[in-house]
Amino acid sequence: MKKKNKKVNAAILIIGNEILSGRTQDRNISFISNWLNSKCGISVEEVRIIPDVEKKIIDNIITLSKKFKYVFTTGGIGPTHDDITAQSISKAFKKKYEFHKEAYSILEKYYGLNKFNSGRKKMARMPRGAKLIYNPASAAPGFKTKNVISLPGVPSILNSMIENCKKYLVKGSKVHSKTINIVTVESNISKQLGIIQKKYKKHVEIGSYPFFRLGKVGVSIVIRSTSFKKIMVVNRDLRLFIKKKNINIFK
Amino acid sequence: MKKKNKKVNAAILIIGNEILSGRTQDRNISFISNWLNSKCGISVEEVRIIPDVEKKIIDNIITLSKKFKYVFTTGGIGPTHDDITAQSISKAFKKKYEFHKEAYSILEKYYGLNKFNSGRKKMARMPRGAKLIYNPASAAPGFKTKNVISLPGVPSILNSMIENCKKYLVKGSKVHSKTINIVTVESNISKQLGIIQKKYKKHVEIGSYPFFRLGKVGVSIVIRSTSFKKIMVVNRDLRLFIKKKNINIFK
Repeated sequence: MKKKNKKVNAAILIIGNEILSGRTQDRNISFISNWLNSKCGISVEEVRIIPDVEKKIIDNIITLSKKFKYVFTTGGIGPTHDDITAQSISKAFKKKYEFHKEAYSILEKYYGLNKFNSGRKKMARMPRGAKLIYNPASAAPGFKTKNVISLPGVPSILNSMIENCKKYLVKGSKVHSKTINIVTVESNISKQLGIIQKKYKKHVEIGSYPFFRLGKVGVSIVIRSTSFKKIMVVNRDLRLFIKKKNINIFK
Repeated sequence: MKKKNKKVNAAILIIGNEILSGRTQDRNISFISNWLNSKCGISVEEVRIIPDVEKKIIDNIITLSKKFKYVFTTGGIGPTHDDITAQSISKAFKKKYEFHKEAYSILEKYYGLNKFNSGRKKMARMPRGAKLIYNPASAAPGFKTKNVISLPGVPSILNSMIENCKKYLVKGSKVHSKTINIVTVESNISKQLGIIQKKYKKHVEIGSYPFFRLGKVGVSIVIRSTSFKKIMVVNRDLRLFIKKKNINIFK
């Protein structure tokens, strides 16, 4: 992993009709986002989910790769006709879509000469100059083209590969967070919460999220900042206010 | 629900730092998408997840409301300082952000005069001319401004309100689907699958999704079309090919 940078952002582009249609519940967004923040200090600032349509992939790759330091794509790098991520990225960056020598030899070795059919060979085709992201689960590598990192859609395979992305990333400042779960409704605390947020708006972000748990209503107050010290200052202010209001804290 | 239309599309805009950061697993995307397709014949063609930042909300509302027949937003309509969806949509459409008479009286009645504090009153402020979406779970209504429908982020409340969106929507043609789950890997079937997709590409979309279940690897082949008849034709072709290849079907 390269040297430390102050603020580093990323976008995630989920490619797949099955997520859009609601057939499949996405599990990659929260996994990638949590990993990027906790391990690399990189904040995901936008996510898009789009269908397996070449023009849409190209347009989104062009837009997002300009707007963000990194773009992570998931899905569309398998052997079937609806896997069109690699060729679409090649077109977006005007690069030749061709066999990657090392990827080809990894797959040839994994399947054996006799079973290395056209579908499997397809997984070795990438934009020219792509850097590989090794896949310990099922061999077929992901790849990095410019600032775009392409991973598969199957969560267990993606999870096995994520550590191999690290060497391509510049490290940023991790966003720390602290959560206080209290027994109340948002509208009981909204005024004071707004005042505290205003006081610390330069360094700290306060989020408020209602929830229901075991028949009780509650609110999670989440304090986020790259400075853990500042989080603790706000935490103290919030706890004083919660005590004064006689609000209980969830155990 | 208004008269039947051929193809009707929509986008979903998820507004919330908690989803982007990976803290909260989104459950609204698949719910809204499934409901729109099965109950209204409307296809979700793009999803975006963005932070609680006014400029980003405004930009995305302008872009998506032009590109799609409907835009559904979730999140940011509660009483706290980080709930800025209503004022951002007002700005996007250059409408006054003001108290909605009926929303105000619904909330006043629900909370009672003594408990109707400033946070609760905030939930009655909307873009001028907004149409209400009633909320049977917790009173605070959602609203429709032009072609944008704004719902809360808490899944149980959103779910309770979704039927009340129906009267504002034009009905489209439902996309039917049929799934065949087979015991194989994608690269075993990719060639033939591509040939069958090509043959029927005008009317039918075939997706291929690998999965792991009870220690077995498998592939879900999903056939999608607005014509159920055409799905059955493709289903027959696929089953013939699966039989010929001696591939087992998951029970």
